[in-house]
Amino acid sequence: MKTIFGHRSIRKYKSDPVSEATLEKILLAGTRASNTGNMQVYSIVVTTDAALREKLSPCHFGQPMVMQAPVVITFCADVRRFSQWCRLRGAEPEYDNFQWFVCGAIDAVLASQNVALEAEANGLGICFLGTTTYTADRIIDVLQLPTGVVPVTTLVLGYPDENPSLADRLPLAGIVHREIYRDYTDANIERIWEAREASDETKNLLEVNQLPNLAQIFTLRRYKGGDNIAFSRVYLNVLKRQGFMNQ
Amino acid sequence: MKTIFGHRSIRKYKSDPVSEATLEKILLAGTRASNTGNMQVYSIVVTTDAALREKLSPCHFGQPMVMQAPVVITFCADVRRFSQWCRLRGAEPEYDNFQWFVCGAIDAVLASQNVALEAEANGLGICFLGTTTYTADRIIDVLQLPTGVVPVTTLVLGYPDENPSLADRLPLAGIVHREIYRDYTDANIERIWEAREASDETKNLLEVNQLPNLAQIFTLRRYKGGDNIAFSRVYLNVLKRQGFMNQ
Repeated sequence: MKTIFGHRSIRKYKSDPVSEATLEKILLAGTRASNTGNMQVYSIVVTTDAALREKLSPCHFGQPMVMQAPVVITFCADVRRFSQWCRLRGAEPEYDNFQWFVCGAIDAVLASQNVALEAEANGLGICFLGTTTYTADRIIDVLQLPTGVVPVTTLVLGYPDENPSLADRLPLAGIVHREIYRDYTDANIERIWEAREASDETKNLLEVNQLPNLAQIFTLRRYKGGDNIAFSRVYLNVLKRQGFMNQ
Repeated sequence: MKTIFGHRSIRKYKSDPVSEATLEKILLAGTRASNTGNMQVYSIVVTTDAALREKLSPCHFGQPMVMQAPVVITFCADVRRFSQWCRLRGAEPEYDNFQWFVCGAIDAVLASQNVALEAEANGLGICFLGTTTYTADRIIDVLQLPTGVVPVTTLVLGYPDENPSLADRLPLAGIVHREIYRDYTDANIERIWEAREASDETKNLLEVNQLPNLAQIFTLRRYKGGDNIAFSRVYLNVLKRQGFMNQ
């Protein structure tokens, strides 16, 4: 499918708004994704208001895309709507546990990928924001997410103002295991990373970061020791606060 | 995009195998999905061997699709490959925590949706198996997943031997919130579920299950009280056992 193989994350956007008709089509594509038992235990929060995007901006570490792209979409695990419906029907909901966070998160992410692809098929650019889980506590406050709802991932979307090359990827043999998991030897690892380590993308990164190899860019610059632990605690606390840890 | 709007989960498959060329194209589509920091912290285990699928079958509650469809694909969060590469490069990996389970799970699910759509675009049918997290401990044993690797979701795929109608979905206004989260009133909930509760799909389900409403089919038959808690504990234990809870 051309859209899948042509995907690039877009980090510069024109200020042109996205029409309501286009937005609706894209969001509808999201809801056609597979989901847990057709219970649709997720919600999609679409934020276009500039004042609200300004409040979301620090939650995404001030990445300029949040203000530049006209649409910010936060995908949430949501057992609240389903539980409320159950109670109205004399059915006993029991979704305030970790299993249902996982189901809701899977539903939310499947929907987000449909939204991303449908957006791209309609000439828009997208970028996923991994910062969503790091600052989930603050996003909950900005978007007023009640108990039973937790943010999982965020997409910005708008018309692209850049045309980047396809990103490097590891070769398929580095990701796919046949029949069962085949553990990696050091020689495997060397072979899997060889092309990426030699790529122009990597050469540029090493120069900008003044570091001897790509791995250290990840461990020393991008995802620094300590942050991982701190973010883990934030998100686990959020799961407790939003009512997903009653087991 | 036609493929997105035409998606149906397929539960009956022909025995025709999927060619290597088609399989490779579909898997490659998976790796083009967005992922956390382009670290690709996920793995894809493709199981076609009948004896192995027979071992996976009880992990998926004996659903006939696992033996009927020629390909079973288990998508896993995987920080093992990345961590091993870091160590070979004198970089200190710190991915043995909850945050990186979440990142890996998001990567795995984004890839799975690309695989599903590319499969459908090539004439195949797919079905996601939510049972993956319920029996993750046993799937780990069958697929020999080492520390740093945890199964998140599973797809079966093959050539469809049925042509079901589009599944019911809640209306867009039931899933999408504009600007911030707008909490549901009881009247909202009634309106959101009205069409699904009146649909032929629901009428059939009520007759088969001999229950007064759709909500009770979910709480009394499909996801029974107690199971949710038990499955939550299984998966949290699995995360500990596979090394994702060191924070």
